[in-house]
Amino acid sequence: MTLTSQNPGLVGGRPVVPSRGVLRPLGLGEVRITGGFWAARQRVNGGATLGHALSWMDRLGWVGNFTTGGPGSPDRRGREFSDSEVYKLVEAMAWEVGRTGDRAAAPGIDGLAAAIAAAQSPDGYLNTAFGRQGQRPCYSDLASGHELYCTGHLLQAAVAGARTGAAGTLLEVARRAADHVCDTFGPDGAWGLCGHPEIEVALVELARVTGEQRYLDQAALFLDRRGHRTLPRHHLGWSYYSDDVPVLTATVLRGHSVRSLYLSCGAVDIAVENGDDELLAAVAEQFDRTLARRTYLTGGMGSRHQDEAFGDDFVLPADRAYSETCAGVAAIMLAWRLLLATGDGRYADVVERILYNVVATAIDDDGRSFFYANTLHQRVPTATLPDDEEQLGFGGGPRAPWFEVSCCLPNIARLLASLSTYLVTADDEGLRVHQYADAEVDTRLADGRRVALTMRTDYPDDGAVTVRITRTDGGPWSLALRVPEWATGAVLVTAEGRRAVPVGDLVVRRDFIAGEEVRLELPMRPRFTRPDPRIDAVRGCVAVERGPVVLCAESVEGDTGDLDSLRVEVTAPPTEDEGGVAVRARFDAPDGVRWPYGAAEPPSDGDTAPLHLVPYHRWARRGPSTMRVWLPTT
Amino acid sequence: MTLTSQNPGLVGGRPVVPSRGVLRPLGLGEVRITGGFWAARQRVNGGATLGHALSWMDRLGWVGNFTTGGPGSPDRRGREFSDSEVYKLVEAMAWEVGRTGDRAAAPGIDGLAAAIAAAQSPDGYLNTAFGRQGQRPCYSDLASGHELYCTGHLLQAAVAGARTGAAGTLLEVARRAADHVCDTFGPDGAWGLCGHPEIEVALVELARVTGEQRYLDQAALFLDRRGHRTLPRHHLGWSYYSDDVPVLTATVLRGHSVRSLYLSCGAVDIAVENGDDELLAAVAEQFDRTLARRTYLTGGMGSRHQDEAFGDDFVLPADRAYSETCAGVAAIMLAWRLLLATGDGRYADVVERILYNVVATAIDDDGRSFFYANTLHQRVPTATLPDDEEQLGFGGGPRAPWFEVSCCLPNIARLLASLSTYLVTADDEGLRVHQYADAEVDTRLADGRRVALTMRTDYPDDGAVTVRITRTDGGPWSLALRVPEWATGAVLVTAEGRRAVPVGDLVVRRDFIAGEEVRLELPMRPRFTRPDPRIDAVRGCVAVERGPVVLCAESVEGDTGDLDSLRVEVTAPPTEDEGGVAVRARFDAPDGVRWPYGAAEPPSDGDTAPLHLVPYHRWARRGPSTMRVWLPTT
Repeated sequence: MTLTSQNPGLVGGRPVVPSRGVLRPLGLGEVRITGGFWAARQRVNGGATLGHALSWMDRLGWVGNFTTGGPGSPDRRGREFSDSEVYKLVEAMAWEVGRTGDRAAAPGIDGLAAAIAAAQSPDGYLNTAFGRQGQRPCYSDLASGHELYCTGHLLQAAVAGARTGAAGTLLEVARRAADHVCDTFGPDGAWGLCGHPEIEVALVELARVTGEQRYLDQAALFLDRRGHRTLPRHHLGWSYYSDDVPVLTATVLRGHSVRSLYLSCGAVDIAVENGDDELLAAVAEQFDRTLARRTYLTGGMGSRHQDEAFGDDFVLPADRAYSETCAGVAAIMLAWRLLLATGDGRYADVVERILYNVVATAIDDDGRSFFYANTLHQRVPTATLPDDEEQLGFGGGPRAPWFEVSCCLPNIARLLASLSTYLVTADDEGLRVHQYADAEVDTRLADGRRVALTMRTDYPDDGAVTVRITRTDGGPWSLALRVPEWATGAVLVTAEGRRAVPVGDLVVRRDFIAGEEVRLELPMRPRFTRPDPRIDAVRGCVAVERGPVVLCAESVEGDTGDLDSLRVEVTAPPTEDEGGVAVRARFDAPDGVRWPYGAAEPPSDGDTAPLHLVPYHRWARRGPSTMRVWLPTT
Repeated sequence: MTLTSQNPGLVGGRPVVPSRGVLRPLGLGEVRITGGFWAARQRVNGGATLGHALSWMDRLGWVGNFTTGGPGSPDRRGREFSDSEVYKLVEAMAWEVGRTGDRAAAPGIDGLAAAIAAAQSPDGYLNTAFGRQGQRPCYSDLASGHELYCTGHLLQAAVAGARTGAAGTLLEVARRAADHVCDTFGPDGAWGLCGHPEIEVALVELARVTGEQRYLDQAALFLDRRGHRTLPRHHLGWSYYSDDVPVLTATVLRGHSVRSLYLSCGAVDIAVENGDDELLAAVAEQFDRTLARRTYLTGGMGSRHQDEAFGDDFVLPADRAYSETCAGVAAIMLAWRLLLATGDGRYADVVERILYNVVATAIDDDGRSFFYANTLHQRVPTATLPDDEEQLGFGGGPRAPWFEVSCCLPNIARLLASLSTYLVTADDEGLRVHQYADAEVDTRLADGRRVALTMRTDYPDDGAVTVRITRTDGGPWSLALRVPEWATGAVLVTAEGRRAVPVGDLVVRRDFIAGEEVRLELPMRPRFTRPDPRIDAVRGCVAVERGPVVLCAESVEGDTGDLDSLRVEVTAPPTEDEGGVAVRARFDAPDGVRWPYGAAEPPSDGDTAPLHLVPYHRWARRGPSTMRVWLPTT
């Protein structure tokens, strides 16, 4: 490829701007979410979460590390990767400026950018945890020190700042930091790679913004170096940092979920920019296998608390599902890249599933507390979880205002601020709508014609989506609408009438005229979903889904029977009434204290009564509760 | 109580010598295992494991820490608790001397005892990781430093050395160390307790050996101090070190399994010595609830890798079951204490279950490699587990010669060397046989009459056990035999004929004469066992047991179908032929790569064929294999 220093037509920025690919992402100025489910969350994100995060980072000294932790200072605070949280917050703020078109939407960003710039060493190196007097030398602990990981987030913050115009000064900081990385670890420099992938994806984005080939080459070099067990042996295996097998020959994602997913994002970006179809196909195949064998119903990834890792194939316990919030964000990043590169609408299905069932679950309504991990089964009422304190340790636990390792907050914040970019793309034929929300789109087709449309829907409460063409320069173009994989029985309504449409990408091509409407009706009947029998942990259970939303049984302060003893009747499908979705269920009450294994078949009979379910993303918002997504059947 | 400096009638020592209780344990000189399943393992333990462990501890410098790590030495090696492994090895060696009656059976013990004694500070303090120049000060990290834990193991080694006469010199070392602990942390000393319980149980045993009331009081003081959240907050909760709730008010074992179990052992010992029936009842109730809700079919405890902890009630996944070997040993220690104190034979059932299914599983046949954790489901063939190296890191993994944290080896070694003590006890009426093995018993009844008997059996291959009275001084006494909880249909054969006997403790009381035989026939038909329906992880599965032995399906180098797809027919019970126990099974072959959740019921039909199972304790001995204990049903 030939990198150019900026893609044309950027309006309001966007996180991923590939030089090639089937689909072209639209900028935050080209698509706006105007109402509904995600608009509410974007408002809370901009109005509460960004300030909440800044206040915690200030209070904990993570921001101050850039200003007060001068040479010899013993005062540096936070974990070795706390710089990255500040960078992710800057990135989120930049997208918020892009989203709103209002620099005042992120009042703290200038101060942060200035502090970051001031902390950079003359040689370009920038990390508050290494290299100063009293600290470990630079790059002395690549496996665990997170230095290049932090640099990666700096680069991404700078890219967002540049593309949105919200923090343009950071671009020069990022260039100098990236140059330092390239000088240090380039072909003529030291061998090295970071224990936590992130620099790869960031260097490609910086290359895209700056047109600097060297950054892309360095990303590819880091990628090539991984998978040869050159990092120090990890006690949980080299797979922990994806250093067990080269990306090109791996068959599935493994090890630490976020590391594996970030690395895969970088690999897709490198493949796209270098036209490396073999690499692209390898990552796509690995992700497909991961979706088929290592992914929760919610789209959540990672079942192991111990190392925040993917389990073996089909090891997906609902109890203590890790399903880390950051892995959800990272999986959306990867699915999005694969969607852009391949045009395969299945990846938009994945994005939708994770958005409604991991991202929406992880944030509280006020935008000020979060799940770090997202279990699918809570047996002990949430309020009795071990903490008296506001700030939780590493992983697990209830929604909390902050965590010692607080990556989930700014990660969700940057995703939500930039969410509109995931709704609609352009291809050679026209526009493709991937996600449904009240929105306005105003962009240009590949041939330069300007088109605008509005989307109106009560999705996901209701399955009707109306797209109204509000401007078109004339001539034929295509409007593609995603019929999600669960939407068997969908109906398309156009001027020609109603017709049933299959699952997959539905293309309407014509000479659209302004004012014309296309309406998609997705069936929202609640449905039972059964697991692959190889997923031992949920054998003999069903889940209930409605549209893209996974439901759960929740017992708030004991308002139902003991969910450990729940049995659901599956002879008739779930129903829906003013109380929501209901199943017929009973609560068996086994004996109390005895050896729990024996010859007898457990008795299971008795009358059933309706039990109302709630969306999984709504759980743990009404007081101490127990919860389960997978419901044992009678 | 009034402690006496030695219980009468000690012959060959034994690990637990309570002053009170329903049952009196016999010494290693009073009961010998002479053949069969456990005799073979005792031979390997004495002939290979003790030397293997000593050689590793030498090579890794853990022994050398006592001799070369003088003041200012930067050479101390191993983790902060490596002293404890040396102590446990000394304890195991001492029991081996007691078992064999041969001081030459543990040739390294004198050198170890001398090195340990020489490392003691003049004030009695003894720990190679703290207090010297260049090290952290003594008792500066009670929560994680394992100092008092190490001291506890020193005390237990000294107790074993004294009771067996194998290392009598250590008793004075232990006294001085215990005095230092009492001086430091006594009623007038510093408040303190150890993050890892162990000192409590050890102080009681030392009190029993020495008659020193102060040690018992100190143990009780440590126990009283626990449960008030005075240790530093642990990021996984105070339950990690059982410091969340006082022992007296807890309802179940929780947190780190080994810590919780060791603490409970100490609590029983304190309760017994102080006549504290409330405390005894509290621990018994907690253990009963733990057995009913937090214990694997194998008797294994602890389902969480992250913190080596008990999970919530009924969270017992077979996949990645932690079931730490040391938790098995510790659970036997606790069950044994409760058996002695209460006489309730259910606790002997527990001991048997853990012996055949955790302890026997954890050791390889040559006594030179071990499982640290004991999964119940291996999906990826064992040989592809991540390690190229001989010494594994912390937890998990295949049987390995050594671990960085190698507590399991000496823990099993000390149990096996002292195993004969767990077979038979004396009560006011006579003798009680708890475990079946070829054995010889020669002891005195409570009233001083001498009795001797031999036990002959091919247990657990065969269920017939013949007890022959070889000596009796005349007059009536009772011989009690345990009919295990699984042994419905057992038959007793005496001179009077055959009669069916119920599950529980069977008492034969009469004027026995020398040469008389009592024969118990336990039914060894293989049987299906079903889990409590609240254990979600194994819903829709059965296990197969035969006698005390849990079986499993194992696929060695793919010699069966894919165990992920196994389905077992349960319409007829398992059968037995020359190939062993068999079930009828088929292997469904679901699709490859697709989203694993959907509306359709998974298809399940096809012919079944016999599938031979193997004892769980035999798995992973024939090459790379996959394995599962819980078998999905058709």
